[in-house]
Amino acid sequence: MNKFTSVHDVPNIKQFVTDALALKANPYANQDLGKNKTLGLVFMNPSLRTRLSTQKAALNLGMNVMVMNLDKEGWALETQDGVVMNGSTVEHIREAAAVMGEYCDILGLRSFPKLNNREEDYSEDFFNKFVKYCGIPVISLESATRHPLQSFADILTIHETWKPIPNPSQGEGSRRPKVVLAWAPHIKALPQAVPNSFAEWMCKAQVEGMIDFTIAQPNGYELSEDFTAGAQITHNLDEALVGADYIYVKNWSSYAEYGKVLTYPDGWMMNNEKLKLTNNAKVMHCLPVRRDLELSSEILDGPNSLVIHQAGNRLWAAQAVIKAILEDLK
Amino acid sequence: MNKFTSVHDVPNIKQFVTDALALKANPYANQDLGKNKTLGLVFMNPSLRTRLSTQKAALNLGMNVMVMNLDKEGWALETQDGVVMNGSTVEHIREAAAVMGEYCDILGLRSFPKLNNREEDYSEDFFNKFVKYCGIPVISLESATRHPLQSFADILTIHETWKPIPNPSQGEGSRRPKVVLAWAPHIKALPQAVPNSFAEWMCKAQVEGMIDFTIAQPNGYELSEDFTAGAQITHNLDEALVGADYIYVKNWSSYAEYGKVLTYPDGWMMNNEKLKLTNNAKVMHCLPVRRDLELSSEILDGPNSLVIHQAGNRLWAAQAVIKAILEDLK
Amino acid sequence: MNKFTSVHDVPNIKQFVTDALALKANPYANQDLGKNKTLGLVFMNPSLRTRLSTQKAALNLGMNVMVMNLDKEGWALETQDGVVMNGSTVEHIREAAAVMGEYCDILGLRSFPKLNNREEDYSEDFFNKFVKYCGIPVISLESATRHPLQSFADILTIHETWKPIPNPSQGEGSRRPKVVLAWAPHIKALPQAVPNSFAEWMCKAQVEGMIDFTIAQPNGYELSEDFTAGAQITHNLDEALVGADYIYVKNWSSYAEYGKVLTYPDGWMMNNEKLKLTNNAKVMHCLPVRRDLELSSEILDGPNSLVIHQAGNRLWAAQAVIKAILEDLK
Repeated sequence: MNKFTSVHDVPNIKQFVTDALALKANPYANQDLGKNKTLGLVFMNPSLRTRLSTQKAALNLGMNVMVMNLDKEGWALETQDGVVMNGSTVEHIREAAAVMGEYCDILGLRSFPKLNNREEDYSEDFFNKFVKYCGIPVISLESATRHPLQSFADILTIHETWKPIPNPSQGEGSRRPKVVLAWAPHIKALPQAVPNSFAEWMCKAQVEGMIDFTIAQPNGYELSEDFTAGAQITHNLDEALVGADYIYVKNWSSYAEYGKVLTYPDGWMMNNEKLKLTNNAKVMHCLPVRRDLELSSEILDGPNSLVIHQAGNRLWAAQAVIKAILEDLK
Repeated sequence: MNKFTSVHDVPNIKQFVTDALALKANPYANQDLGKNKTLGLVFMNPSLRTRLSTQKAALNLGMNVMVMNLDKEGWALETQDGVVMNGSTVEHIREAAAVMGEYCDILGLRSFPKLNNREEDYSEDFFNKFVKYCGIPVISLESATRHPLQSFADILTIHETWKPIPNPSQGEGSRRPKVVLAWAPHIKALPQAVPNSFAEWMCKAQVEGMIDFTIAQPNGYELSEDFTAGAQITHNLDEALVGADYIYVKNWSSYAEYGKVLTYPDGWMMNNEKLKLTNNAKVMHCLPVRRDLELSSEILDGPNSLVIHQAGNRLWAAQAVIKAILEDLK
Repeated sequence: MNKFTSVHDVPNIKQFVTDALALKANPYANQDLGKNKTLGLVFMNPSLRTRLSTQKAALNLGMNVMVMNLDKEGWALETQDGVVMNGSTVEHIREAAAVMGEYCDILGLRSFPKLNNREEDYSEDFFNKFVKYCGIPVISLESATRHPLQSFADILTIHETWKPIPNPSQGEGSRRPKVVLAWAPHIKALPQAVPNSFAEWMCKAQVEGMIDFTIAQPNGYELSEDFTAGAQITHNLDEALVGADYIYVKNWSSYAEYGKVLTYPDGWMMNNEKLKLTNNAKVMHCLPVRRDLELSSEILDGPNSLVIHQAGNRLWAAQAVIKAILEDLK
């Protein structure tokens, strides 16, 4: 693997999940692989889970880690070419990325969308230029439109916890879990990166026969079809919840009216009442979660919540990604 | 040891001091203990000595360290239950702490008091919830009401430097040093955490027969009796200084008129003139110190100051604590 | 070596360059040297290249690294003696430096000039006090008047890339490269640290027979003669460029009218047109560079630019310095 920026970098999800679970069972078996190798983690935006889990994953593999909060410890970067740099940007991304590539073997980069201009955000201009100019493998720590380390941990968590009772009347095998991505309320305009990425991974996992995938999103909150092809899509949450085994709760701002928080009908917050519609579904969220706004405390503190387990799996997802890249380093 | 949040976690101070001095003599003997173990250091407030000494202590023990300045790199945490999180807090401490517990084996936490509401600060609500929800051993890097790593380094420094001339007329043993905690002026309202904790440790050390302990505090600046039971207490500094072997200089704001800077009589700044009242006492301070406001430059730059030695011992105190916790990790 | 604050700490540049290139060829051969040794990196100002390259250099040598952004994570330091500290400074440099010396074996320090008071900046008061009070070897990560790690990487890059065609008509040896330090425009008032330091190193390298050195600086922008003795100096850029093999492009503010940005004649931005005057010169810059203000994009993106290579060499310069200090640690 020479970069990890979306599910398209992953040949086979099932195999990748298997690799990650092997690392979880035996975390320190590959420390020679990372010896004298350095992972640089570059943050243009804050991070808690991603920072710590990726750092720990690299340490488990014997690597050194250097963290760079470029938004706070650095300076403003220019991304456009042909600009006379006589304004507020101090360094061009061409130089900044190339220099970081000189000191590291792998770079992780987090860069959020600005949510002002859809075309600009969805071009992934900043992220792609960083990948291009740094000259070494890059791991997305969440870009403007995707958060693949999160999505990988999500499918890992589903695969790991899915223990269906085999139903002989349906044949000898086990049935596939029904996974529902459910939009939830929020007071702020959040990126579509997590749901885009989750949808993209779930659609591929569905093709691989791992799950069945449904998206419930209110009118006006439809995700870009570039990420959702193959999913069952509905505007009716209750309908989607029927028979669900996993509910992935997440807010996002509008894609159509880009970056806007639109009005929405009542009844989109997940709670125990709604849980009754499901197949005693496990509830997931990428965190941070706004309690009793996106998701009820009763669920988060109850037996159906997977959110901490899921966050813990961020470590093994990151470790599998770094290991795959280390194995292909020239 | 499964947490270190106050002297109450320490069965025997004298033994713990002996352990720390053994580490000081042989810092790198226990590196297998920390192999593949990770210490997370979470700061809600700035830190210099605590950050560096604890980090170095963990490295000496072969651990990995991840530092998280949650106040600057993170976001505001909600601590109350039953709150609809539609305000400025981004994540609940239940999730944030639990997630950090997933990636680390031990966590250190610094969280200062707000000095607005005594009951709230003295409940240690934030700190205790973090301990409860993270699910792994926690080391206090200074909480609202205590700074036990500092106090441990303090008693270590006293024990290490106390070289009395045995006085046969008093029997065959050596006498115990007289230790005075002396309030000092400041322009800002400071927490009571350091003096509370120092008092608590000294009172226990007195019970163990290690020292004799006196507190000199001006009217209105009396520390909570929960921390000072067993100490000699006076409002007269000069009286307290007579025969003192160690003077621990420290400012704190009022506990009675909570968090206030009250007027105080002249003569509370420690200087060479006052030193004459003592038994050529050694002078200590936890640092940072305001020169010629709390403590005179002539003392700090003279032979009686222990402040740098004392700061150096923060390392060995931290290392003894981490080692004790590592030994009891399941 | 017991400190690295200027070229005066280097007995022989050519030998030091040879050492650095040996490390570049074999980066991990000296990991026993740094075992259980700690490098503390203290930043009073932002850093990208210096932070990452020095950190990586220490890791290559088997050291631990602790980074301290004292400007952001710490508090204001007092540097003057005899001051009653009842203002905004929280800790005196005497204590802060001494304490950091307790936890580290080597310290790196970055501290920029304020550009208000030339005498104060050029006294290097802050830097020198830090060196004095910390009590351990100090590496300059750029001080008010010098940036020796940069300059070392610069001469290393020149030495490494200089491949002249031997000219038998001039004797059997190779000729020395002509190196030109060329002032360039900028919109902000920048320190003289990089050009001072570069000049100081080049003048010594010239004495060692490694290069020929010329400075081109506009009227009013003359560097202090304390750093330029032995250089060819001109106010005419085009004249300086004739026959140049290396051009070091850099802006600085006025030394005479201290810290001011003066008006300057047209024609000081380096571009391909000017490059024609040279001996197909390689172009260098310490970065960050303002594109098309200091230096044209066509050069930066073209075959004559050495800026990324030069930044990469920061690593080997730092590693040679740390190695030399580790070898002389008591």
